[in-house]
Amino acid sequence: MDPKASLTAPNAIREMIRAGDYSGPTNGFVPGFTQCNIVILPKAYAFDFQKYCLQNQDCCPLLATSVNAGDHHLDVLGGNIDIRSDVPKYRVLRDGQLIDEVNNIHQLWSNDFVTFALASYMAFDYVLHSFGFAHTTSSPAHTLPMYISNIDSLAVGPFAGNKVVCMRPMDTQEIIKAIQAGSISRVPHGIPVHFGEPKLIGINNLSKPNFGEPVFFSQDKLPVFWTTSLTAHLAITRAAPELCIINSPQHMLVTDRPDMDLLIQ
Amino acid sequence: MDPKASLTAPNAIREMIRAGDYSGPTNGFVPGFTQCNIVILPKAYAFDFQKYCLQNQDCCPLLATSVNAGDHHLDVLGGNIDIRSDVPKYRVLRDGQLIDEVNNIHQLWSNDFVTFALASYMAFDYVLHSFGFAHTTSSPAHTLPMYISNIDSLAVGPFAGNKVVCMRPMDTQEIIKAIQAGSISRVPHGIPVHFGEPKLIGINNLSKPNFGEPVFFSQDKLPVFWTTSLTAHLAITRAAPELCIINSPQHMLVTDRPDMDLLIQ
Repeated sequence: MDPKASLTAPNAIREMIRAGDYSGPTNGFVPGFTQCNIVILPKAYAFDFQKYCLQNQDCCPLLATSVNAGDHHLDVLGGNIDIRSDVPKYRVLRDGQLIDEVNNIHQLWSNDFVTFALASYMAFDYVLHSFGFAHTTSSPAHTLPMYISNIDSLAVGPFAGNKVVCMRPMDTQEIIKAIQAGSISRVPHGIPVHFGEPKLIGINNLSKPNFGEPVFFSQDKLPVFWTTSLTAHLAITRAAPELCIINSPQHMLVTDRPDMDLLIQ
Repeated sequence: MDPKASLTAPNAIREMIRAGDYSGPTNGFVPGFTQCNIVILPKAYAFDFQKYCLQNQDCCPLLATSVNAGDHHLDVLGGNIDIRSDVPKYRVLRDGQLIDEVNNIHQLWSNDFVTFALASYMAFDYVLHSFGFAHTTSSPAHTLPMYISNIDSLAVGPFAGNKVVCMRPMDTQEIIKAIQAGSISRVPHGIPVHFGEPKLIGINNLSKPNFGEPVFFSQDKLPVFWTTSLTAHLAITRAAPELCIINSPQHMLVTDRPDMDLLIQ
């Protein structure tokens, strides 16, 4: 049985992951509940990283930060979250280099760690869907192609780097409607950074995304680009702290927070 | 002295027009105060025309209707408005055909007339300007080119016809920002109906607008199209009532109503 179809509560998803029964991507799980990209850093980096997120809110909408260093709960996103086990796949980086990919981080946990949770672009998929967009452009079960653009994020301390963008193909009418949906809803990642010629933002080959899967589309559609919170992951590899932990792309924290809650802040 | 620069109150503009001292276009007068296209019809047409405006709110945002037939005031738009004299130039149509252009309609006035005032596209110029757009795309003193598109309005009774659109040239970033501005402000005429290829909405020659003046622009810009309330004028020529009066294009009623009031309804 497909676990994505059978489980309808975020808590049930997390329990399955926590028990070690599922370690795959989370796209498609319980649409309508916010999923987050996770960053876990030594406390010495916490102030600068938080400031980086605030300075780059369009890319890195910060939904939650652990209350104290060493705290492995994120109560505002779900009562029983244990960030050491509730992400299906973690990446461990030393000095900015990937050294391991693991299913929990109990062994690595430190009382010096601070956790950050950033809303993923998928909340906007949910908004698009609620505005009547077809699944081809708003499918929560499909991972959008993502590209490292040439658009700089605003640097803070050691954190800097290009914006990572996702792409949805749309025709003119869809572009107009999608920008309206993003503007009215005020959902994170709702306003595109570019549409039309990909080269203008440093993307030379749409069929070779840096993350996710390519999407092929007809000539009456244009590629439209929105930022993603993977921008934060890229900035971390540039900052190269001695140790940090992030989730593997598309393997996110499934939270109890309805996407619609993002719209009424 | 240029009267457009010297007069800063809508009332002073109307007094000048009422006295017969000015009969030119009103674009450029007191930016920030709503100007209206006017339709004056026999009462027998009033219900259908009002319904036509409501069904086509994107084109025909109805700001005011006279309280009773024969009433020549529009108090909600300005305390001392006399619709028989406060428009600089009127067009008189019999059976949908232009038969005369006059500076007041005292002689033609009938107790059977109902007056309608529709917000012009210029309120969105004001919003664009307040969102930082340069005067080249948001100049209240410049009349935008307007075209009869092939997009049908929704017919009500005898009222029907194509949407009249105005065009502002914009680059990709401006298009994104303009749609945001239109969505957030909810100003009338704030959301484009099309951008890019003009032929797709039936416009074959951008340099030959049906109303207003052509705008020439560089290759990094796209033509972007928004509806205008001249759509209502076109619908009236199609309905061809035995007698009706409209303002000449660009010769509008200058009201006391701040454009910003349109945004908080």
